[in-house]
Amino acid sequence: MKTLKIPEATIMRLSVYSRYLSEMDRKGIITISSGDIAEGVGVSPAQVRKDLAYFGEFGIRGVGYNVKDLNRTILKILGLSEGWNIALVGIGNLGLALSTYRGFKDRGFTITCIFDNNPEKVGMIVNGIEVMHIDRIEEIIPQRKTQIGAITVPASAAQDVADKLVRAGIKAILNFAPVVLNVPPEIELRNVDLSVNLEVLTFNLGGRMA
Amino acid sequence: MKTLKIPEATIMRLSVYSRYLSEMDRKGIITISSGDIAEGVGVSPAQVRKDLAYFGEFGIRGVGYNVKDLNRTILKILGLSEGWNIALVGIGNLGLALSTYRGFKDRGFTITCIFDNNPEKVGMIVNGIEVMHIDRIEEIIPQRKTQIGAITVPASAAQDVADKLVRAGIKAILNFAPVVLNVPPEIELRNVDLSVNLEVLTFNLGGRMA
Repeated sequence: MKTLKIPEATIMRLSVYSRYLSEMDRKGIITISSGDIAEGVGVSPAQVRKDLAYFGEFGIRGVGYNVKDLNRTILKILGLSEGWNIALVGIGNLGLALSTYRGFKDRGFTITCIFDNNPEKVGMIVNGIEVMHIDRIEEIIPQRKTQIGAITVPASAAQDVADKLVRAGIKAILNFAPVVLNVPPEIELRNVDLSVNLEVLTFNLGGRMA
Repeated sequence: MKTLKIPEATIMRLSVYSRYLSEMDRKGIITISSGDIAEGVGVSPAQVRKDLAYFGEFGIRGVGYNVKDLNRTILKILGLSEGWNIALVGIGNLGLALSTYRGFKDRGFTITCIFDNNPEKVGMIVNGIEVMHIDRIEEIIPQRKTQIGAITVPASAAQDVADKLVRAGIKAILNFAPVVLNVPPEIELRNVDLSVNLEVLTFNLGGRMA
């Protein structure tokens, strides 16, 4: 069913649709139209239909989509039918923010271990998890069956952390450090750069002010 | 020079190229090839040339680009020739992380004011800025000539904060709250959803494991 041609923007919107469908499901809504989804998340109905069409026919003409079924299908597409374990490396302000981010748990992401190299932080309990020294990454990550590493250390330490995560057998890295990481091609790497998001805004502002 | 057809992915890469060019400039590098930029940031040389071609001819064949000139041009394209002022609303862990995020200052973004509704936080000094009550948003933002609002409050409070920012005359909103905001069409709105980034990773992992 899945092809390799699906644009990343579609994947990102599917993620947003799914969060909205979960909310509607909690409210007891049984069926929903592409127009309802579109209005709920702020895109056009045509966009919703086009995005869902990548994955085959879901809706019934004139009735719409079954909320639970559609959400289950999207979660499966996104690889979220089963949960994922996350190792968090770096427990500064951003690490703390991620460790308490409710959005992760709601979507099946569990933080299984937290690492830092600061002796004052090692041994601290954050959200029920003991902070361990980064030298233990290769020992702990396989034990806790953790597939994803989130890096929130300073740029200067990020490559070393990435190398440790790779040696520990991690499959994917979400990197918040403002630096380009070198990892083997089989590792999924995604960079989250907070400035980039601001700069898309200022580009758009410039365009409007010109 | 600017057209409306430039893909957002190009804008995001320009932002990354520019950060790399600043780093090279600090190291004293005078000229650089598209291949060097490509290797430095982890994309293909053809992609670099294609992205830069949206904005006209920069390089000299066989010589490459002048680092300072190219960076200055990209900063202008991104609307970063002059600085931008940011109001931060919500000083939890994520707000604290943003308030100390070095990447902002380096790119000409200045946090001019911080707001929260928690009486225990109002009056606190964060990075040299006094935290004020959110009821003062409409009074303070025009005084401090602030064009961009960053929302890091819980989802339930985000729409009320957005409404206040709009009434205060803000031009753009960077929203970290996991909720869809309604703002007038003239306001630039960008949502940063930390889960979405994780779900692009798990989609890609699923595809590889299938």
